[in-house]
Amino acid sequence: MQTYNIALIGFGGVNRALAELIQERFSEPTEALGFGLRIVAITDLQLGTWQNDDGIDPAVALAVERGGNFAAFPGGSADVDNERVIKESSADIVVEATFTNPTTGEPAASHVRWALEAGKHVSTTNKGPVALFGPEFRQLADDHGVRFEYEGSVLSGTPSLKLVTQSLRGLNITGFEGILNGTSNFVLGQMAAGLSMADAVREAQELGYAEADPTADLGGSDVALKVQILANDVLGGSLTPADVSVQGIQDLDAAAVSEAVAAGGAIKLIGAATRNADGSIDASVRPVALAGDHALASIQGATNAIAFHTDLLGTVTISGPGAGRIETAYALLADIIAIDDARRLAGGTS
Amino acid sequence: MQTYNIALIGFGGVNRALAELIQERFSEPTEALGFGLRIVAITDLQLGTWQNDDGIDPAVALAVERGGNFAAFPGGSADVDNERVIKESSADIVVEATFTNPTTGEPAASHVRWALEAGKHVSTTNKGPVALFGPEFRQLADDHGVRFEYEGSVLSGTPSLKLVTQSLRGLNITGFEGILNGTSNFVLGQMAAGLSMADAVREAQELGYAEADPTADLGGSDVALKVQILANDVLGGSLTPADVSVQGIQDLDAAAVSEAVAAGGAIKLIGAATRNADGSIDASVRPVALAGDHALASIQGATNAIAFHTDLLGTVTISGPGAGRIETAYALLADIIAIDDARRLAGGTS
Repeated sequence: MQTYNIALIGFGGVNRALAELIQERFSEPTEALGFGLRIVAITDLQLGTWQNDDGIDPAVALAVERGGNFAAFPGGSADVDNERVIKESSADIVVEATFTNPTTGEPAASHVRWALEAGKHVSTTNKGPVALFGPEFRQLADDHGVRFEYEGSVLSGTPSLKLVTQSLRGLNITGFEGILNGTSNFVLGQMAAGLSMADAVREAQELGYAEADPTADLGGSDVALKVQILANDVLGGSLTPADVSVQGIQDLDAAAVSEAVAAGGAIKLIGAATRNADGSIDASVRPVALAGDHALASIQGATNAIAFHTDLLGTVTISGPGAGRIETAYALLADIIAIDDARRLAGGTS
Repeated sequence: MQTYNIALIGFGGVNRALAELIQERFSEPTEALGFGLRIVAITDLQLGTWQNDDGIDPAVALAVERGGNFAAFPGGSADVDNERVIKESSADIVVEATFTNPTTGEPAASHVRWALEAGKHVSTTNKGPVALFGPEFRQLADDHGVRFEYEGSVLSGTPSLKLVTQSLRGLNITGFEGILNGTSNFVLGQMAAGLSMADAVREAQELGYAEADPTADLGGSDVALKVQILANDVLGGSLTPADVSVQGIQDLDAAAVSEAVAAGGAIKLIGAATRNADGSIDASVRPVALAGDHALASIQGATNAIAFHTDLLGTVTISGPGAGRIETAYALLADIIAIDDARRLAGGTS
């Protein structure tokens, strides 16, 4: 059975969780997956670079302490040499999970481009490269006979893009509505329970749901990128980030929240898109007062959900975690499974 | 691209809906699916048998009026000759959607057995053959290099079995809870709104949600078969129907329903199974008072849902229709897509 060589670009929470999974269960080929995973390179801003085409023991890499670096290992260095590792290592798959600027998509976008141009499959959790350069990267992947996968950019490991491409094939998806940001959903839930927005945000920060600067979560820009990615993938659109109209919850009136609760429903920050009869797509992010029996009204706390509207099945809704290091690492694994599917379908059994 | 020959066993609502779909969009290979579908045989208790290995025009078959039969067509007969058609037609795939006795699994079980023994793939919507003879039929299919698929036996076309095998691969599913019967869920919803059970059942019958004899829906036996099928597929069990403990809602006290509503929650008929540390599986059907924030508490009306408990993602919940002729026909299409996947993965591209 196949063992894939992988390069981990960025060794923060998500790629560390993937390394743990590989160590615990996926280094050898399993019957469940049909393949094994071997780490041949790791780069990280703090830790430097470690490349070893014979394989890196995940346990050793994970044990490097804060403040340390990879320099002591054969093939290791304190320098961060992403470009060389991505272009020259023996990796079949580049797993990109750096911190990335959502406006420029960098440095993730360059990592993705280098990998695809070098004929390596890419799995990324970063929204920026997908939202900003999706068409270019899909074309690059096609041109080089490899896959560009990004399940983790939407609902972490909860299947959203892959639900559609794997388990809803043959359906015509006409639109979707989603709760695509756990922080804002948690804040709205606490406001529904009577807290002020300021107190709800503070609680979210204390619980680790919200960043010190919650602007991207509350203002809707995080959701907007996910709406754009979903609309392009699921509805066949070619939207740019600017095509999504965005209204966040930062100015939401507590009275409006109470009013929705009193009516038996809830205000939710809904990211949605619909394909019109002429093929155009309307995409938006805005707070919506949902009736109590709406499929998304009862999605609580940090849980995320998407209701897909389809021609043959009506509405199919999936909900699950939308964040978390292990949950997002599972998205990377799901991407690798899809890469393996594609390889096997192309006849490359081994 | 591939065109599959299919035999439709039973030409009631579901297989008629599939014939309509084939006529409207799937007779020629499409880019979305990569294959086309050609009906080469139809059998039906009322209409008799029509076999034509050159292909049957779905529109012509669908136009046969009530009280008529297939005798006038070349290869047609007023006799119902399931065994010959299943064994001798040129069908690659036998689509089994007859009315079937849930206690014996017949006549569907014989149809499935004949087809698999003849080296034909099977897609069925019937729970009986899966629940009663699942291990035998899976083995038979393996022995003959074909697939035995039955997505429609659980949530009609809403992906449940295939969600797990396609989009949750690599996860360890530790258990599930589901609302697996739309009739009983509708009745419970109406009781929550203040109706008596008798009035709620009458309304369900008027809306076509409930049979004249609602025993299987309210008593839990329909849910029990689905729990058994899911437990065996998703948790790797080998349960028989008798291994599922069953308590229906037929004797449920209206006061208990009101009490759950007053507490902000709901009573739901929950089909559930859990794998224990020793590998044994507890499986049950019973009314459960759910808190308002439970993932299944807000599933309304005839909608079905399953919450899968997993090791890496926590709980992932899917909801959608659990019945309907077009919805169930989509389950057959999803089965055929899985059959095609397996063929292509085995290297049989064409």
